[in-house]
Amino acid sequence: MTIMKSEVRRGAYYDSVVLMQLQKALAELPGVADAGVVMATEANKELLAAGDLLPADVSAKADDLLIVVKGETETAVTEAIAQVDQLLTRRKAASSSEYRPHSLAAAAKMLPEADWVLISVPGRYAAGVAEEALDLGKHVFLYSDNVPLADEVRLKQKAQAKGLLLMGPDCGTAIVNGVGLGFANRVRRGRIGLVAASGTGLQAVSSEIHNLGSGLSQAIGTGGRDLKAEVGGITALQAVDMLGKDPATRVIALVSKPPSPKVATQLLRAAQATGKQIVVNFIGFPPPGHKVGNIHFATSLVETAELAVHLATTVETSLLSPMRRTVEGYVRGLFSGGTLAYETVLGLTAVLDQLTTNIPIRPDQKLDDLNRSQGHTIIDMGEDEFTQGRLHPMMDNDLRLRRLRQETADPAVGFILLDVVLGEGSHPNPAGELSPAIADAVQAGKKVIAIVVGTDEDPQDLNGQIEQLAAAGATVFPSTNEAVDYIFNRLPALESSAPSVSAAAFGSSLAAINVGLESFYESIKGQGGTAVQVEWRPPAGGNEKLMAILAKMKQKD
Amino acid sequence: MTIMKSEVRRGAYYDSVVLMQLQKALAELPGVADAGVVMATEANKELLAAGDLLPADVSAKADDLLIVVKGETETAVTEAIAQVDQLLTRRKAASSSEYRPHSLAAAAKMLPEADWVLISVPGRYAAGVAEEALDLGKHVFLYSDNVPLADEVRLKQKAQAKGLLLMGPDCGTAIVNGVGLGFANRVRRGRIGLVAASGTGLQAVSSEIHNLGSGLSQAIGTGGRDLKAEVGGITALQAVDMLGKDPATRVIALVSKPPSPKVATQLLRAAQATGKQIVVNFIGFPPPGHKVGNIHFATSLVETAELAVHLATTVETSLLSPMRRTVEGYVRGLFSGGTLAYETVLGLTAVLDQLTTNIPIRPDQKLDDLNRSQGHTIIDMGEDEFTQGRLHPMMDNDLRLRRLRQETADPAVGFILLDVVLGEGSHPNPAGELSPAIADAVQAGKKVIAIVVGTDEDPQDLNGQIEQLAAAGATVFPSTNEAVDYIFNRLPALESSAPSVSAAAFGSSLAAINVGLESFYESIKGQGGTAVQVEWRPPAGGNEKLMAILAKMKQKD
Repeated sequence: MTIMKSEVRRGAYYDSVVLMQLQKALAELPGVADAGVVMATEANKELLAAGDLLPADVSAKADDLLIVVKGETETAVTEAIAQVDQLLTRRKAASSSEYRPHSLAAAAKMLPEADWVLISVPGRYAAGVAEEALDLGKHVFLYSDNVPLADEVRLKQKAQAKGLLLMGPDCGTAIVNGVGLGFANRVRRGRIGLVAASGTGLQAVSSEIHNLGSGLSQAIGTGGRDLKAEVGGITALQAVDMLGKDPATRVIALVSKPPSPKVATQLLRAAQATGKQIVVNFIGFPPPGHKVGNIHFATSLVETAELAVHLATTVETSLLSPMRRTVEGYVRGLFSGGTLAYETVLGLTAVLDQLTTNIPIRPDQKLDDLNRSQGHTIIDMGEDEFTQGRLHPMMDNDLRLRRLRQETADPAVGFILLDVVLGEGSHPNPAGELSPAIADAVQAGKKVIAIVVGTDEDPQDLNGQIEQLAAAGATVFPSTNEAVDYIFNRLPALESSAPSVSAAAFGSSLAAINVGLESFYESIKGQGGTAVQVEWRPPAGGNEKLMAILAKMKQKD
Repeated sequence: MTIMKSEVRRGAYYDSVVLMQLQKALAELPGVADAGVVMATEANKELLAAGDLLPADVSAKADDLLIVVKGETETAVTEAIAQVDQLLTRRKAASSSEYRPHSLAAAAKMLPEADWVLISVPGRYAAGVAEEALDLGKHVFLYSDNVPLADEVRLKQKAQAKGLLLMGPDCGTAIVNGVGLGFANRVRRGRIGLVAASGTGLQAVSSEIHNLGSGLSQAIGTGGRDLKAEVGGITALQAVDMLGKDPATRVIALVSKPPSPKVATQLLRAAQATGKQIVVNFIGFPPPGHKVGNIHFATSLVETAELAVHLATTVETSLLSPMRRTVEGYVRGLFSGGTLAYETVLGLTAVLDQLTTNIPIRPDQKLDDLNRSQGHTIIDMGEDEFTQGRLHPMMDNDLRLRRLRQETADPAVGFILLDVVLGEGSHPNPAGELSPAIADAVQAGKKVIAIVVGTDEDPQDLNGQIEQLAAAGATVFPSTNEAVDYIFNRLPALESSAPSVSAAAFGSSLAAINVGLESFYESIKGQGGTAVQVEWRPPAGGNEKLMAILAKMKQKD
């Protein structure tokens, strides 16, 4: 027979290392089959139940500590529960005897050169500690999870305004000045800067970079929500800007789950502005080909590392001047080929902050009126709505020519894109039909780009078609990728008025204050960094009511 | 001043070449500034209006012919309109004088060796002609667009049951036995088979293959809707099966806009079953890395061609036997690293017909009960719900070990996947903690796969960790991509009971019957194929009411 007993300690705070150690110690006692020691959240109670460790009669709330012991005899279980206090005390005595400050402010006085504060206290206390760190002018590595999104936004805006980085919340890893924070692999220093909204993404890429014989300048974690629309990629944008200016960084790699589309565009444009080689792996984000401008798209963590290492060793940074001839005005694409149009939409979607089309990838790209372009616009004129009782535009350019003249007359237009698809069945001389209108568009100051698909055996004479288009003033490419690249390289810079991150904290050594998991403090010291551990306790001993009163009193100050 | 006059011809049918030529001829008459000749659909009237060519007082319906002429004088415009009949007659007289059959059945008797029927009549008549062709036992190339989806499904099911291919509707292009159908570039023959739900996708890839010095065995268009859930990829699956068995095809390339997820999986599994090298470009579909098994993922049309050419020239087909050791049972992944879990979900989503997870990419993947796996299941145990008041699984494997034992006890499980992330801050010996439970799982007949992330400088000793895991019976990989590859190569084949496409129509020459655009007939003959043109007229002269009566009478037969 199995006996199960439990004990509830109301509103008690213990750090998670203590809880884990207590659970292990209880499970190892004689006659004990299994034990559970958890904060009694709903999720944790379900986990206990799944392991057959939740007594039916327990009433414990999220901030209560729940201790459960299962064993063969009443005696064994009762004795185990009776030892809880003793086991907790033993753990306390084993702790270090060196002097430790009890507040962040005191720690900052002890180690004034500390530019960094690491925070791994439970989520509900984390925002308060982070705010205090920012007020002291420190960069923050915020490991804690379960921090509300609104707190993240507020803290990041505050950090940004002060030129400080706030990595996290739920930032598992970073490598600053060669020292790993949180979970971090030991990686040699080198020329690759890493920005990741992804903990194991950063670890996997940095490990592979090391294993390939290369190394990292800095690796910045942003927290998994940084690239969501609500946060707007504040930390990632700061990090890209910082690494862009860092002379030790030659290549920047960006790793994230798929970002909000708007944030993705901003980030790619900011990355473009650095003029450095960029490797992007937005895991699960359809890449617009292999490369657009200085931005290379990887499709796996391993490939991200491989590409970054390859670029760091082979590309001369000096060749990539951020000086570019920009073109003002909208992009208008008039396509006869649906897939060419679609591939172009895919490519431009990644780098333009707005795009409308009759073949939308996202619902917000839907063009309201087919006959009127709206901002950047790509139209597939081979779609059903254009071909009822009418020849396909590969045979008859009448509608395209009319639209081309319409776009030429629009002063807001900068680029006009056309495809010319040769081959059997198509118009015998499409370039001849399009050229006069192209020449007019060029005359009116538009950049006209023609994508020509065909072979040297096609009946239209591929080279002759290209020559006619070029003579009319069009720039001719054999693929949409090159056309998108051409446009991307001429886009004006997106403005940002945010102050840059102070570079003083980035160099060759690291000094930090650690609040929370002691193992992070030990790890920094073990890696040659300087650190102070704060002997942190939750305000009011973790009592929620008292905390609320304290917070109110503080507001009145 | 500008004068505009119009004429409406009720329920009149003309083919679109005639309409285009009439419009051009009218526009070239003296004193005429512009002309429009269109079937009066809403879309076409809007297009006329956009070009300032729609008179205010016109009342014309979708199956009426609308003729508009704009000019400087009343006389010029009136005279132009008066010439419409004469211009139409002139066009008719210019047409060929050779004998032409007036029905598909008659054409089939004239050219019994014709395996193919090309159909480019207006959409509302197309399904009827296609059905007739299938009844005659012919493969169909259906160029017509504006064909209802329900007709497509019905026709494709009928074709499949008869071992016939129905390409389309809205199939712009194909190359069969070296002869281009519809719009097609002239491309040399070779070892690459192409299947495309994308017209210009097929043209761009086939052109590039030719331009790179290689060539095509067959290029099959499927129509743009074939990979939607409603159609289920019938034509694409038939084509992959056919090319898989075709000794002239060494590499198969698949091009499409993003398919329905279920169809994508079926198609990839069918492609796997061919044992040939496959290049996939589902434009805008996030690729699960570069390669899974024999399937290579390209991210642009140009790269699709490059990869196919590379594989056709370098890989020995004989090395790729479709014989595989399969493993029965579900995949269960228990991850500590969120991004490793996510990358694994991304990879498996492409190749498994079902998957549940707490980090879903699609809403239907959401796992209902975190503590109970359901089919193939991937769990990120570092998510907030598992870490409240508890150490992260990189530090404490307690929950993972419990879950690992639970999965071991489940007889429906075939694979168990774990990640082991080393480095600063992580557990000092995760392999040691996991190994006994891994050994139990292996003992119980499960394939255990461990993904290990780390460097040779990490405190845990990378090689020692790998050795411990291997000694417990785990297969160890450094990336999720290799783990997904390992699983993919052991998946049992998805069954299909559909009959194969008859191979007789695929060889070295082409004979076809063309119904519709005359230019397609001339193009086939110009390329050395044999063809018969049907002198097609719509049933009942295009009169909708009469057509309905005829259809009813036919049903009663």
